[in-house]
Amino acid sequence: MTMVEAATVAEATGIPTTNMISIVMFSGTADKFIPLGVLAQAGAAMGMDVEVFVTGFALMAFTKQPKEPQFPAEFAAMAPALMQGMQANNVASWDTMLRQAKELGAKVHVCSMMSGVMGLKLEDYNDLVDDVVGAATFLETARGGETFFI
Amino acid sequence: MTMVEAATVAEATGIPTTNMISIVMFSGTADKFIPLGVLAQAGAAMGMDVEVFVTGFALMAFTKQPKEPQFPAEFAAMAPALMQGMQANNVASWDTMLRQAKELGAKVHVCSMMSGVMGLKLEDYNDLVDDVVGAATFLETARGGETFFI
Amino acid sequence: MTMVEAATVAEATGIPTTNMISIVMFSGTADKFIPLGVLAQAGAAMGMDVEVFVTGFALMAFTKQPKEPQFPAEFAAMAPALMQGMQANNVASWDTMLRQAKELGAKVHVCSMMSGVMGLKLEDYNDLVDDVVGAATFLETARGGETFFI
Repeated sequence: MTMVEAATVAEATGIPTTNMISIVMFSGTADKFIPLGVLAQAGAAMGMDVEVFVTGFALMAFTKQPKEPQFPAEFAAMAPALMQGMQANNVASWDTMLRQAKELGAKVHVCSMMSGVMGLKLEDYNDLVDDVVGAATFLETARGGETFFI
Repeated sequence: MTMVEAATVAEATGIPTTNMISIVMFSGTADKFIPLGVLAQAGAAMGMDVEVFVTGFALMAFTKQPKEPQFPAEFAAMAPALMQGMQANNVASWDTMLRQAKELGAKVHVCSMMSGVMGLKLEDYNDLVDDVVGAATFLETARGGETFFI
Repeated sequence: MTMVEAATVAEATGIPTTNMISIVMFSGTADKFIPLGVLAQAGAAMGMDVEVFVTGFALMAFTKQPKEPQFPAEFAAMAPALMQGMQANNVASWDTMLRQAKELGAKVHVCSMMSGVMGLKLEDYNDLVDDVVGAATFLETARGGETFFI
């Protein structure tokens, strides 16, 4: 939906429509990276602005030597079937999906506060990361869009 | 709030109002199903459009032979008191609340990608499920509403 | 952004802008309280309305004898480094950030249903809590704002 179309729909219905999704990527378990990839890729493919703000333990998956995220203990028994099913269905990995989203314009911001806490600088992050920003900058960017706290 | 009322408020204040909530039900631990039921039921009772998109490990609670979700390890010790308190307060189970929401118009969509990964087809799901859709369809539906990623 | 500015931007672009964030604080693990404090404090400092709805196991951190939240098992090994990094960077504790947000107008509501289930009344909560409300009241308040389910 273009901005003009959004304006037309909003005017006709009074129900606002938006063309942005913002994702706070906080949880660092392996399962949560799948919806990050899927939502970012689907949103970007639909022409939406996609803004990702990475913070918390999820930061560790965006460094040059990323930590392999672990599945939560409650679902560890189901993880092998999930991973096999994803391979059998040719589902791309979360970082491949996020790279596709970025080629379509998605932006990945990393939390400045949490970077400081973890002793990480912009040069410590891999090519998925666009910049290091504060929470206020992210909230300003996210105004009016759908938000997903993952 | 009707669409006309929403339009009036939006016009008067410049602050958009919406009449839709969309819930991505991803986490599969037992505690997270309670806010799914509560938000869906409350939203539907208020006359809001309620759109639920079930994915991840949460899918397994919507099959014809559903898996009983487990409480997270961190809160396992508190789970019995919680369950007793819910019974003592006559709080409906999450699926009863979701059924009430559906009687008021809520829709429950299941993620096509994750269904494929888990080897599940529409006929494998129980009567809580309306259809199997992709993430893009869900994002299109969710535009302009409040979103909750549970 | 003032309401007038929001109206101007909305009119010019058709993309709604909002001046409210609402946070459902459900998860009760220690890590999740950090984004509660950060988002509430940043939003309030930006002049946004900040509405927090506390429910689930997170309730136990808002009582007069609050339970110390635990880190999730998957990240327990990283917790000491996180806590040391927060001290070294002079990052305020989550409740200090939430108090700063409240001084700027943020409101903290506690879920009436979950309070009943846990046998808690308004007088059992500490000074962080403004009132005890139902989910419908919260959804009504949250209309049109960005929502974060933590």
